[in-house]
Amino acid sequence: MSVLVVGSVALDSVETPFGKADDVLGGSATFFAASASHLTKVSVVGVVGSDYPTEKLEPLKKRGVDFSGLEHAEGESFRWRGRYRHDLNSAETLETRLGVFSHFSPKIPEKLRSCPYVFLANIDPRLQLDVLRQVKKPKLVACDTMNFWIQSRRPDIIELLGHVDLMTLNDAEARQLTEKANVVQAAQWIMARGPRHVIIKKGEHGAFMFTEKTIFFAPAFPLESVFDPTGAGDSFAGGFIGYLAATGDLSEANMRRAVVMGSVMGSFAVEKFSIERLMTLTRAEIDQRVKEMRKLVTFEEEIPA
Amino acid sequence: MSVLVVGSVALDSVETPFGKADDVLGGSATFFAASASHLTKVSVVGVVGSDYPTEKLEPLKKRGVDFSGLEHAEGESFRWRGRYRHDLNSAETLETRLGVFSHFSPKIPEKLRSCPYVFLANIDPRLQLDVLRQVKKPKLVACDTMNFWIQSRRPDIIELLGHVDLMTLNDAEARQLTEKANVVQAAQWIMARGPRHVIIKKGEHGAFMFTEKTIFFAPAFPLESVFDPTGAGDSFAGGFIGYLAATGDLSEANMRRAVVMGSVMGSFAVEKFSIERLMTLTRAEIDQRVKEMRKLVTFEEEIPA
Repeated sequence: MSVLVVGSVALDSVETPFGKADDVLGGSATFFAASASHLTKVSVVGVVGSDYPTEKLEPLKKRGVDFSGLEHAEGESFRWRGRYRHDLNSAETLETRLGVFSHFSPKIPEKLRSCPYVFLANIDPRLQLDVLRQVKKPKLVACDTMNFWIQSRRPDIIELLGHVDLMTLNDAEARQLTEKANVVQAAQWIMARGPRHVIIKKGEHGAFMFTEKTIFFAPAFPLESVFDPTGAGDSFAGGFIGYLAATGDLSEANMRRAVVMGSVMGSFAVEKFSIERLMTLTRAEIDQRVKEMRKLVTFEEEIPA
Repeated sequence: MSVLVVGSVALDSVETPFGKADDVLGGSATFFAASASHLTKVSVVGVVGSDYPTEKLEPLKKRGVDFSGLEHAEGESFRWRGRYRHDLNSAETLETRLGVFSHFSPKIPEKLRSCPYVFLANIDPRLQLDVLRQVKKPKLVACDTMNFWIQSRRPDIIELLGHVDLMTLNDAEARQLTEKANVVQAAQWIMARGPRHVIIKKGEHGAFMFTEKTIFFAPAFPLESVFDPTGAGDSFAGGFIGYLAATGDLSEANMRRAVVMGSVMGSFAVEKFSIERLMTLTRAEIDQRVKEMRKLVTFEEEIPA
């Protein structure tokens, strides 16, 4: 089944201890689509400016990503410039130029309104709500958000929670949104306002999936070198939703597998700049890492002490 | 089989967002012993001052902990005073009074020199080396350390690595000791200097066990409320080594179970001040949480997408 993602399509300039990349593909929808394209059909709704090097989207199109919903507006594309220090744990934003993204108002093309899986990537929650008014009873709607919107649009996010099945956000954002220091309590707070599932991403420390009665945890795959963490969370979401859409199975057992797939796709994303690694990735490599993820956490039945 | 732990026996005064405790049992050897006592016989070598309320050790003695190697010296006992803020992630040390601990020179009683399992808790690495000169070919020797010793006694720690089977330390300490930002690389650096196993503890983010060829990860058990993180790492070590000693099995599969037991015991330790929770804990509660740990990470074989 196919997935609709609504989010940013940007140009990133990134500096890490290992190198620099200028004006490379970035944005939440781009990473999501690059990741999910390994699992299912993805359609992107977003906006780019007249300066956007659309030929750079070719590798994604070759992977079957549908950009028919990508709006081309007059003006500058969304640009983000950031830097990671030695520990790679958090990005320092050096510059954000919203450009055409500041007037973005997502219009979902008619043929995409029936997509059964919808991911509302990190954009203004008012726009996320607006997308939900356009789509027709998806099987699963998931949303992400970020600190900026939590600070400026908290009531809208809370309204949004009443209309989504699942929320993904990182641990700092979960704490900020819920004002709970404890992630278990934060997840309960969010679920009490709508979503049946909450995924709290902890970057290099893995991710939790909460339901009313269960908790699942998948570690981040321990890499010997992380090259550029940009887009890891959206690649996680792409792997997660992409897997659900590919299998069409929303059982707890399958959602756990989807979280592992999310973690695996996030781990590939950080091995190179931008979506580079996701573009060379093979299904065999994905399957191999899923196996390694299992080995990483498996312990056999206990021998009574 | 029995375990010998050499470390601090202290009095802690702790302040958390949930309350205060003054002059309660603390110290690495105390937490280790309280935890391991649920699994096997433990003997403590350490020192207390003439002011130490030895009657407070009674609950541990009732659990079979052997304090025959606990030295009673003239002077003040080791005291630590610390505070945790809202997020409980790191302790702020308000005061450390080493007292008799500053002249501690561990003397291993003859009957304890043949203990098959030895844990060198966080003390001066020169003293850790000195303990190893006194014991007789243990089946497993593990050591811990801390930032203070890494800064002041790094060459001694490196010497120690040549004489231990396993090292446990937290992620910040691993980075400090090895000057590697990446934990996989940090673990390899340590293993190249002696230990066949390295456990890198990440507090609320779980723990990795590295061997030359494998990596195992156990999450921290997601608690709805963490009351006082003091002693979590030593309780982890107590659960880990205690389980190995109880089972006498150093296979990879069993060491993985031991890591899970460590994580479980650490999760109980933080539920109350000092060793309170470890003193009321039952085997049934431990087994139940091991089961929950399994549920937390289990995902079934993948359905081909």
